[in-house]
Amino acid sequence: MAVYTDISDDELAKLLADYDLGQPLAFKGIAEGVSNSNFLLETEAGRFILTVYEARVAVEDLPFFLGLMRWLADRGFPSAAPVADRSGAVLKTVRGKPCAIVAFLPGLSVRRPTVAHCREAGEGLAALHRAAEGFGLRRANDLGQAAWAPMFAPLTEAAEGLKPGLAATIRADLARLAANWPSGLPQGVIHADYFPDNVFFRAGRFAGAIDFYFACEDALAYDVAVALNAWCFEADGSFNITAARALVSGYEAVRPLSAAERAALPVLAHGAAMRFFLTRLHDWGATPAGALVRPKDPLEYERKLAVHRSASDLVLFGDPA
Amino acid sequence: MAVYTDISDDELAKLLADYDLGQPLAFKGIAEGVSNSNFLLETEAGRFILTVYEARVAVEDLPFFLGLMRWLADRGFPSAAPVADRSGAVLKTVRGKPCAIVAFLPGLSVRRPTVAHCREAGEGLAALHRAAEGFGLRRANDLGQAAWAPMFAPLTEAAEGLKPGLAATIRADLARLAANWPSGLPQGVIHADYFPDNVFFRAGRFAGAIDFYFACEDALAYDVAVALNAWCFEADGSFNITAARALVSGYEAVRPLSAAERAALPVLAHGAAMRFFLTRLHDWGATPAGALVRPKDPLEYERKLAVHRSASDLVLFGDPA
Repeated sequence: MAVYTDISDDELAKLLADYDLGQPLAFKGIAEGVSNSNFLLETEAGRFILTVYEARVAVEDLPFFLGLMRWLADRGFPSAAPVADRSGAVLKTVRGKPCAIVAFLPGLSVRRPTVAHCREAGEGLAALHRAAEGFGLRRANDLGQAAWAPMFAPLTEAAEGLKPGLAATIRADLARLAANWPSGLPQGVIHADYFPDNVFFRAGRFAGAIDFYFACEDALAYDVAVALNAWCFEADGSFNITAARALVSGYEAVRPLSAAERAALPVLAHGAAMRFFLTRLHDWGATPAGALVRPKDPLEYERKLAVHRSASDLVLFGDPA
Repeated sequence: MAVYTDISDDELAKLLADYDLGQPLAFKGIAEGVSNSNFLLETEAGRFILTVYEARVAVEDLPFFLGLMRWLADRGFPSAAPVADRSGAVLKTVRGKPCAIVAFLPGLSVRRPTVAHCREAGEGLAALHRAAEGFGLRRANDLGQAAWAPMFAPLTEAAEGLKPGLAATIRADLARLAANWPSGLPQGVIHADYFPDNVFFRAGRFAGAIDFYFACEDALAYDVAVALNAWCFEADGSFNITAARALVSGYEAVRPLSAAERAALPVLAHGAAMRFFLTRLHDWGATPAGALVRPKDPLEYERKLAVHRSASDLVLFGDPA
């Protein structure tokens, strides 16, 4: 949850004066998003979300994110479409911070996805990849495989603090990932943060994705690997092969994976676990005690790393019978 | 802001199964309320707020609060009407905590009320008092004048910590309030927390009141006094007589004050400042450092106390020329 920036009625009125959205009818901070502040905004023209971008989001990346959301919405993919002001601008400023107004996207995220949800989520992810084809802007994955060793360098002590001996294990993982990281897989725009809280359902069916603020260009199968980690582990830390097969099979119903992509899923999933372990480890140490947001537990992803490190049955990714 | 309780999609579905509200379409925690958790809930039947009552609200008081909201809404006062489930119950349970679903009330609260807002707020408060006439349930004001000395007893050290010498000043205030507290003023149901963030406007006109969780029976003019403190002080701590006159005059356009009520406003406002000073002082010490809510500064009300203690021009309350 996060509402870091407080917007007054006066500041809102000043912002809305640039748009053709009529008068505001309701405005409430909502507990959603960790790198931005979000507000439910109802005006005479309908319902919207006002997102205020906090320090963690690089302003220069916002045209990519907002352009992608617009592109996807225009192609029928259910993502919140940014709204332009009268001058055509979607990226605006409020309280000295960048912000955007996007259409309200209905739907509910699920806390404990069922196998059926995993299948739907897989289909939705493939639909996202298909809809993003042809999008003209580019953004490199600054949290991709090449970044992990440099990210870990200042965090070795933090890792040891978490669990003695962990630093050496992570270093070995990083070496193994570097040696085995696949190249030549189909690239495209990936969501890169396709977690259950960023995916909406309606009556059990996929109804949209939100929070495109990690989207970038990378191997499409890496996005599937991120999703496998996020959707297919049980609360006890065990990997649910049935859920994973459902997710991959849902994905393939829309965009079949190549043999190389399927074969790469285990190492991609190991790498995806590394990426979230590293950012959580960083945030764990960096979040001040009094912050109004609770950092996510890096140990959850340390356990996922351990599963991928040792699991041989993960080759089942490549054989969704 | 406060979302203390996290409700999963499964818990929501189980709750909604008791209602005739159709399927949920959207569900978001909102940053509103300090003694409860609030969620925007959209279903096939419309938009609602799900409120989950936290420890601070006494369960035995909830029938009074919810009954009052229903009573007011039925009499045309814009307050969020509780929704009954199929068995007629409005007070329900989710995650082991009491909760209620109320209709979504549109409107925006204002951060810095203008004189015009103060007038509208006064009218709205009188309309609330009028609409509440005849409501059958009773609830004593457990934060009324009789409670202040006992509330302060364990807080003398906290007061000294805030400002050396403050404990003696507060004790003198308490004695003065006890000696001069008016009796025999017209009683009725009061909101008792009629602050700008609990009042909605639409296009500059009063559009409703929320958060009835301090409502009780007390002198109606005491509610006006609470509002004068909440609406008519400038950010620099000075009292805005023009705003105060507008609030009282708006109130009197709907419900004229008696001569006794007018004459009592200065002491009632002094007392109302004491009530909020005391609860803020208590919360200031009681809020753990890592809590996801920031306690309100007791010094704001210490300054208001000082204004009421020394001001002679506050007799102007009684003469809204």
